[in-house]
Amino acid sequence: MLATEQELFITSPYSPGSPLFLPNGAYVFNKLLSFLRAQYQQYGFHEVITPTIYKKSLWEKSGHWANYKDDMFEVRGRGASGRVEGTEIGEEEEYGLKPMNCPGHCVLFKSQRRTYRELPIRYADFSPLHRNEISGALSGLTRVRRFHQDDGHIFCRPSQIMEEISLTLEFVSMVYRTFRLPPFKLVLSTRPADKYIGTIDEWDAAENALKGALERSGRQWSINEGDGAFYGPKIDIVLEDSDGKEHQTATIQLDFQLPQRFGLKYQAPAPGLEKRGISTTDPELLREVGFVTPVIIHRAVLGSLERFMALLIEHRNGCWPFWLSPRQAIVLTVNSKSGSEAVRGYAKTVQKRLSGLQISRDEADGIRVPQFIHQQTFLVDVDDSDRSLNKKVSEAKRKGYNMIIIVGQNNVQKRTVDLDITGQPDQDEATSHLSKVVGKTMVEDLRS
Amino acid sequence: MLATEQELFITSPYSPGSPLFLPNGAYVFNKLLSFLRAQYQQYGFHEVITPTIYKKSLWEKSGHWANYKDDMFEVRGRGASGRVEGTEIGEEEEYGLKPMNCPGHCVLFKSQRRTYRELPIRYADFSPLHRNEISGALSGLTRVRRFHQDDGHIFCRPSQIMEEISLTLEFVSMVYRTFRLPPFKLVLSTRPADKYIGTIDEWDAAENALKGALERSGRQWSINEGDGAFYGPKIDIVLEDSDGKEHQTATIQLDFQLPQRFGLKYQAPAPGLEKRGISTTDPELLREVGFVTPVIIHRAVLGSLERFMALLIEHRNGCWPFWLSPRQAIVLTVNSKSGSEAVRGYAKTVQKRLSGLQISRDEADGIRVPQFIHQQTFLVDVDDSDRSLNKKVSEAKRKGYNMIIIVGQNNVQKRTVDLDITGQPDQDEATSHLSKVVGKTMVEDLRS
Ligand SMILES: [Zn+2]
Ligand SMILES: [Zn+2]
Repeated sequence: MLATEQELFITSPYSPGSPLFLPNGAYVFNKLLSFLRAQYQQYGFHEVITPTIYKKSLWEKSGHWANYKDDMFEVRGRGASGRVEGTEIGEEEEYGLKPMNCPGHCVLFKSQRRTYRELPIRYADFSPLHRNEISGALSGLTRVRRFHQDDGHIFCRPSQIMEEISLTLEFVSMVYRTFRLPPFKLVLSTRPADKYIGTIDEWDAAENALKGALERSGRQWSINEGDGAFYGPKIDIVLEDSDGKEHQTATIQLDFQLPQRFGLKYQAPAPGLEKRGISTTDPELLREVGFVTPVIIHRAVLGSLERFMALLIEHRNGCWPFWLSPRQAIVLTVNSKSGSEAVRGYAKTVQKRLSGLQISRDEADGIRVPQFIHQQTFLVDVDDSDRSLNKKVSEAKRKGYNMIIIVGQNNVQKRTVDLDITGQPDQDEATSHLSKVVGKTMVEDLRS
Repeated sequence: MLATEQELFITSPYSPGSPLFLPNGAYVFNKLLSFLRAQYQQYGFHEVITPTIYKKSLWEKSGHWANYKDDMFEVRGRGASGRVEGTEIGEEEEYGLKPMNCPGHCVLFKSQRRTYRELPIRYADFSPLHRNEISGALSGLTRVRRFHQDDGHIFCRPSQIMEEISLTLEFVSMVYRTFRLPPFKLVLSTRPADKYIGTIDEWDAAENALKGALERSGRQWSINEGDGAFYGPKIDIVLEDSDGKEHQTATIQLDFQLPQRFGLKYQAPAPGLEKRGISTTDPELLREVGFVTPVIIHRAVLGSLERFMALLIEHRNGCWPFWLSPRQAIVLTVNSKSGSEAVRGYAKTVQKRLSGLQISRDEADGIRVPQFIHQQTFLVDVDDSDRSLNKKVSEAKRKGYNMIIIVGQNNVQKRTVDLDITGQPDQDEATSHLSKVVGKTMVEDLRS
């Protein structure tokens, strides 16, 4: 409902479960990505771009082909492939449309020789993922077949687990605070009673590292004894909304299995101790150099970006924070018998100044000059239709504009604007933006 | 070869023709996207995000299923879909993995009622696209199965064709100049002799609009009589490299057919004249309001981003422009018997200051503060290994670092750095960056 009014996305019977983002929705989506990318710099994540389809043999290696069958789409060449002379091995093979990024990241890790000095290696990936949900379950942005995660995989030494989990929990805290989400709970799931891989020693060490990180976070956490996956313990992040409903948004999953399946390894001294996460200064032991299997930490902070957008819309009652809003401001004109052209012209000037977008041209040939990549701009619309101001204001409010800016003949002469930011949940935020943007731009620039 | 040294991407037999971008390659790729996004603001393009798979019925409507068969991948649910009660229409249908974005954009255009006032509507899309090239043809970034275009579709009124083509040509000029590419040629392909849709009147009007825009561009252009597609005339942009080899990078394609196939329309007064691109002020004619089919302009500026990256690497001999480089700077330490710890510490300080990345923490709970989205940062590495300076310098040059920054004991005391930017093709650019970044950061900040 709110999503329709905001023109964020549509759905189509041509691709059930794959939302088509309209410009407003794509804007919010991209802004979330920009936000995360800026944070990746300080948390040492490196973005990679990986294929959409992989041959069956990859999914057999990862275990998805056998265990995740019902949730996957299968892909085949319709024409040329498999029918040419001298085809490569596996040419006739079918592909799987990727439901997860992990196997691709393992291929990247394995493409180079690795030593303990390079670890942890942290890959991030925003690829579209596909899971074949049954059609009856599909709904808007929450139950989909195509979605994007703020997916990340940390390849680390066993001794680095606790520090990496700590950093990830801090990352989650920082992000959830930024979005003003309610406090979250942390739940640790531990080694299952019977079916698990690895030794009890390895599990104990890993679980202790996770417990240490949870303690260090200073947050409330609980334990789900025996509820971990057979390949490693995990931490779930659970958000409680205003109705008391719980949403599991993010997961931090330790994985002993995938690195083994892919034969991942790194070179390290004292490999016997290294693999148990123990460091030594004994020169005798350090003389031996060998290969050790890294641990993988699967982690997402927002989880599915589509679901996170839906959660934000609900939590904030359809009102985006100013910085994320696809409708930051609208300039409305007050109609008058005379001077409406002047008012319209002034409205355009206000729009241009507030948007921060400056179009300049090369003096020699008149060709436009490129916009600077890091220029901060704002989305400012104009409604200069002949309708009454009341109608325009109520439409602007219904559409969720953060700032409503009104200009009439009076304003043209005085070079001012009138503002309506009532109903904004973050009036402080809006006011602070106003004084920065409007204050500076309008008062200094427009009066000149 | 250059791509390997620069660690841009790898290929894998698990997904032939789908390059896996390593962090350096993903960085360049994303920077190209950021650059284009910044320009989209001034050229009125709105980014959308559209599905990867569409049911066969969409591709039948667009004509791809019949005419593009050999180049497409087919997709089917492996498990649940099609086997549940009460499935939607077409549930059993197979999907096609999209080779182009146009049909999806038609679905978006059609999702709302349109009037002449809203046009032109310009959609941009960076989706991954798949085309099933035969395996023998695959090569690096140039012949691939998975790629991304800086794809755009302009839905406009017939009377807007010339202006839109002009704007697109200006956009191309601006972008190619920014990358310091050699001058390009423009080639107009006109109506085929026999097989074409639409009337000769419509073709003549469209071709005249294209010719007008070509003339207005002030560039050299030639004509390929009768070489247009049956659904509309087009302009090819052809780049000549230093060896005289021609590369077709971008295309601007007019399309009368797709809007008809999808039944696209917009409301306009005087529809009879409107569809011939003629405007009128006759109140009698304007009284009639009706529906008119828009024209679609398919356009890409860089074309395939993968191919464009390969072209840039070749054209610039592996040396990225500073702003696009994944290796902007490296700080090398001069080894000395005493004081090497001080030098290492200073190298880290220089790295931190130059990178522009500032990590600060909340005073109350010590949690990091988010990085600002629009903060400009730089990629600065450190090599403080024990190897000789000569070895480190030559490795840094081989790896293509734009700036090589050397610090020794001398520099620690004086709070200065030594610089090596020899071999930079754009010494001016580098020097200007240096004075801005290094000058300000090092001299002002480091000396304080
Ligand atoms: Zn994963
Ligand atoms: Zn197209």
